[in-house]
Amino acid sequence: MPNDSFAVDPLNRVKRVPSRGIYDVETVYSIVDSCWVCHVSFIEDQRPVTIPMFFSRLGNRVVLHGSSKSRLMTRLNSGEPVCLSFAIVDGLILARSLFHHSMNYRSVVVFGCGTPIEGEQEKMDALKSLTDKIAVGRWDDARKPNSKELKATSIVAVSIDSASAKVRNEGTNDDPEDMSLPVWAGEIRFETVAIAKPDEHNPGDIGQPEYLSKFFSK
Amino acid sequence: MPNDSFAVDPLNRVKRVPSRGIYDVETVYSIVDSCWVCHVSFIEDQRPVTIPMFFSRLGNRVVLHGSSKSRLMTRLNSGEPVCLSFAIVDGLILARSLFHHSMNYRSVVVFGCGTPIEGEQEKMDALKSLTDKIAVGRWDDARKPNSKELKATSIVAVSIDSASAKVRNEGTNDDPEDMSLPVWAGEIRFETVAIAKPDEHNPGDIGQPEYLSKFFSK
Repeated sequence: MPNDSFAVDPLNRVKRVPSRGIYDVETVYSIVDSCWVCHVSFIEDQRPVTIPMFFSRLGNRVVLHGSSKSRLMTRLNSGEPVCLSFAIVDGLILARSLFHHSMNYRSVVVFGCGTPIEGEQEKMDALKSLTDKIAVGRWDDARKPNSKELKATSIVAVSIDSASAKVRNEGTNDDPEDMSLPVWAGEIRFETVAIAKPDEHNPGDIGQPEYLSKFFSK
Repeated sequence: MPNDSFAVDPLNRVKRVPSRGIYDVETVYSIVDSCWVCHVSFIEDQRPVTIPMFFSRLGNRVVLHGSSKSRLMTRLNSGEPVCLSFAIVDGLILARSLFHHSMNYRSVVVFGCGTPIEGEQEKMDALKSLTDKIAVGRWDDARKPNSKELKATSIVAVSIDSASAKVRNEGTNDDPEDMSLPVWAGEIRFETVAIAKPDEHNPGDIGQPEYLSKFFSK
């Protein structure tokens, strides 16, 4: 396993605009952790198949879960190569020329293999990491999985064997000869806001848990 | 081509929670059009490889563009099977039991093949559709691609041969015996807000174009 950076090879090297390629583990993990969904790819009948899935990161592994009956989970458990893709769009860049239109984004591509997480304690640990991704504190608050539910849940860990990040985070970048064009240029920046919507069955005296404040403290 | 719905077969059938599977063309297109990025998968050296890319939809095709020198574009142009994955996370569902935690989301998986878009007019039409995705009106405002820029840009159209959407848009769904637990339950709903950030080189008398108002009219 890499210590500070993923080894760069033809598989994970960022080919286009290589200056945007980032290989340090901290940046890769930070982008992964900022996403709610990863796009999980495998090969089926000689075709690439990609499914968006909720996930968590447990050290150098990505945890995915699904129904024990799921063909997808069986597939991911098989040890075949898997690719995980993550992306956050931070803004649209509107330049003076269409050629220089772009996006600000943070993205990661991970290459690894899936192995099943079995054993009751290992499964509980993995489910806790999935829950902690939502909010640390939720695990001890909500009702924990019982043995029937645990049995119904299949969990796979995908090793982050190789990865790279690609990030753009800058303003417009027009050619000098276009700078005087009478065209509005800049960024349409996107920000996510969270709104808590308690359901109608909450006890009247229940407050919003402190551990959810992370969603509203921006 | 399907008229109203994509044919359902083992490739595109939503296997888990089939009630969330949607095959009508209008829903699929509407979710695709709501995303800024699609995750493009192909096979390389017997591995799935997935790259997040900006795109637009032109009828029943997804338009992708990149550098003419890009190995990715060459790959996508080869006519091999491609999978495109799209997802929007609308909210996190916090149920009384951890087992019923979930997400509200809109997702689409597309199966198709890439073909190059060549010819100057066809390329300009495709670039216009990529620009229109940002905002209709931008094409006539910003400087259009010149022949050198057009030459440097490779464009591929992926046919939407098969597709399915999977959507969850509901509240908590707890088991009856958990309803009286003293646990906050509900949705953390996510909304995206846009902020216009003109760069410092805009002429002093230039206003924000009317065609950008779509970002702020929520």
